[in-house]
Amino acid sequence: MKVSELGEFGLIDLLAKIANISPANQTASRQQLIIGIGDDAAAWHGDASTQLATVDSFIQDIHFSLSTAPWSELGWKALAASLSDIAAMGGIPRYALASLALPDYTEVDDVTALYKGMIELAQQSGVAIIGGDTSSAPLVAITVTILGNTGSRDKHILTRSAAKPGEKIAVTGELGAAAAGLETLNKQLQFDPEATACLKNAYLHPYPRISEGQLLVDQGVKTAIDISDGLISDLKHICKSSQVGARIEVDRVPIQPAVKANFGDKCLELALSGGEDYELLFTGNDKVIGEVKTAVSCPITIIGEIVDDKLGAIALVDSKGNPLNLVKEGWEHFITR
Amino acid sequence: MKVSELGEFGLIDLLAKIANISPANQTASRQQLIIGIGDDAAAWHGDASTQLATVDSFIQDIHFSLSTAPWSELGWKALAASLSDIAAMGGIPRYALASLALPDYTEVDDVTALYKGMIELAQQSGVAIIGGDTSSAPLVAITVTILGNTGSRDKHILTRSAAKPGEKIAVTGELGAAAAGLETLNKQLQFDPEATACLKNAYLHPYPRISEGQLLVDQGVKTAIDISDGLISDLKHICKSSQVGARIEVDRVPIQPAVKANFGDKCLELALSGGEDYELLFTGNDKVIGEVKTAVSCPITIIGEIVDDKLGAIALVDSKGNPLNLVKEGWEHFITR
Repeated sequence: MKVSELGEFGLIDLLAKIANISPANQTASRQQLIIGIGDDAAAWHGDASTQLATVDSFIQDIHFSLSTAPWSELGWKALAASLSDIAAMGGIPRYALASLALPDYTEVDDVTALYKGMIELAQQSGVAIIGGDTSSAPLVAITVTILGNTGSRDKHILTRSAAKPGEKIAVTGELGAAAAGLETLNKQLQFDPEATACLKNAYLHPYPRISEGQLLVDQGVKTAIDISDGLISDLKHICKSSQVGARIEVDRVPIQPAVKANFGDKCLELALSGGEDYELLFTGNDKVIGEVKTAVSCPITIIGEIVDDKLGAIALVDSKGNPLNLVKEGWEHFITR
Repeated sequence: MKVSELGEFGLIDLLAKIANISPANQTASRQQLIIGIGDDAAAWHGDASTQLATVDSFIQDIHFSLSTAPWSELGWKALAASLSDIAAMGGIPRYALASLALPDYTEVDDVTALYKGMIELAQQSGVAIIGGDTSSAPLVAITVTILGNTGSRDKHILTRSAAKPGEKIAVTGELGAAAAGLETLNKQLQFDPEATACLKNAYLHPYPRISEGQLLVDQGVKTAIDISDGLISDLKHICKSSQVGARIEVDRVPIQPAVKANFGDKCLELALSGGEDYELLFTGNDKVIGEVKTAVSCPITIIGEIVDDKLGAIALVDSKGNPLNLVKEGWEHFITR
C-alpha cells in the first residue's frame, strides 16, 4: 500500500501506534510525558535543569541515497545524527519529534521500516518519540528535533567555546569507518566479508556517544563537539568559537583498522575529513583526560593540543613535527570542493 | 551572491548575526537562554511548568510556491504555522529552531529576507530563534520547531480530547480569507484594491492567536485546535480524540466579509474547508464561552454544538435544520481529493 492510499491522518495513526508501544514511550508516559503524538503539540512536566534542543535534516540524495541506505537504517541514522548533538553537549536526550516529508508513491511498509529503525535507537537511548509532522514532497526528507537536559541543575554542559591553549585534544573511538563505508556502498567495493560489513555498518548504523558525553562532563571536560562533518572541519568550529588554534599530530589519529587495512594512502584523509563517525572530539588537561580514559569504556586517544592563535589556524604535523597539507577539510553544504 | 558562494558556515554566521540582534533574542539571552545559535545544541534554564513542543515543515510547491509567496512572507508564515500549534494548546511560545533546506543557487538576499520575516513575527511573539540547521537540497523546505510552556505549574493546557456532548462549538475571528487569498494569488484575481490586499495578506501573513489561546485557558476552556487544514477537517480531529460528534449550523459560520463579497456560492466552502486561517476552534458551555467573549478582543462566534456520537460524525445543517453535504473536507497530505 502507498501513503497516497492511506492518507496523512491514517499514516499518523499508524506511526503513533508504533511509537506508543515502544517501551521508551511507555516509560516516558509513566514519568513526565503528558501528551505524545496526536495533539497540536506534545506536552510534558518541566524541570529546573539545563534544557537542550537540536534539529537536523536528512535529505534524499544530499545526506543519503535510497539505493544504498535501507529505510530502517535511514530512520536509525537520522535520529543518531541529532542524538549525537545532545551527546556533544554532555546532555541526556529525552524526547524526539520527527518531521517526515515523503513522495505520495512511498510504500507504507517503507515508512514503517524507517519509523521502526528510529524507534529501535530511541529505545536504546531512552528517548520517547512524542510528535512530528508528515507531509507530501517530491523527495524524502527527515527532520529530527531532540529535546534533552542535564538531569540536574548543578551539571554543566559541554560547549565549543571553552578550549584553552595548552589543553590536549582527544577523540573517542576510531575514525574514518563511516566515510569508508559510504565509499564501499557507492562503489560496491568488496573486502573480506567482516571488514566490508563493519564499514557499511559504521556508515549506516552509527551509535552516538551519549553516555560518553555525560561521563566527559562528570570528569570535568568543558569543551566538546561531535564529528559529523569531519575531524578537521569540526575542530575548526572549536577553534573559531574558543579563539584558539590547534596542532594535530596526524600519526596519532586513531584510524579504524578496516579502513587502514583496505584504503591505503587514502585512509588518513578518510579519518581527518570523512565525517559521520559521530565520535566526540574534546579538550582537557592531562589529568582530566587521564580520568576520562579510566571512566569510559571506549578508546580515548590524544591527537594534539590547543595552541595560542586567535585566528584559529589548525596545523597538521607528522611524527617528526613536519607540516602536512590536507586537500579536503570536510563536508560543508552548498559548496563543492 | 548565491549560498554556494557563501557556504554553509558563512550562511550560519550571517543568520546567527541577524537572530542575535533581534530584541526577542536579546531579552531571552538576559533571562533564561544559555546558548543560542552556534553550538551543537541550544541550551536554556528549565522550569517546572508544563513544557510544549511542536514541529511543522513547509515544502516548496506543496505548502507554497515561490511564484506567489515572497521570501519574507515565507519565513513569517512557516513560523506562524508552528506558533499556531502552541496557541492551540494555550501555551506561551518561547524558543524556535529553524531548519532550512535550500538549493545551492539560492540568493543569500532571499534567505536573509526569509529569516528577517521569521524574526519579525518571532519578535512580535516574544520568541527567540535559538538554533536550526542549514542544508543543500533540490527545493526549499523550512521546518520550524517551537518550544513553549504554560508559564506556571497550575495552568492547564488545551487538548483535542476534552470535548463533551452539550458543549457549544466556537471559533475566533473570521474564516475563508486565507484560502480565498491563495486563489486570488494563483488566478491573479482582481477585486477592489482593499479586498484584494486583505485576502492576499490573510494567506501570506497570518497572525497566530497566541494571546487568545492563553485567554481561553484562563476562562476555563479545555478543548481547542487551530484551523490549519480547514474547519471541518480540524473539527474531525476534536471529534475523534474526544469520541463525540458535532453539529454545525453553517449559516452561523463567520465568513470573512471580502470572501463573502467576492466569492459568491464558493464562500461557504472556503470558510468550511479552506484552511490556513489559523483561527482557534474550541468548545465550552455557554457560561465559559460568554466569559471568553468578554475577555478577548477578536470576534467569538458560536457555530454549533458537540453531540453524543462515539463515531465522531459531523452534521452540517442550514438555519432550518436541513442537512447539507460538503464536497471537500479540507487539506490532507498524500491524498488528492
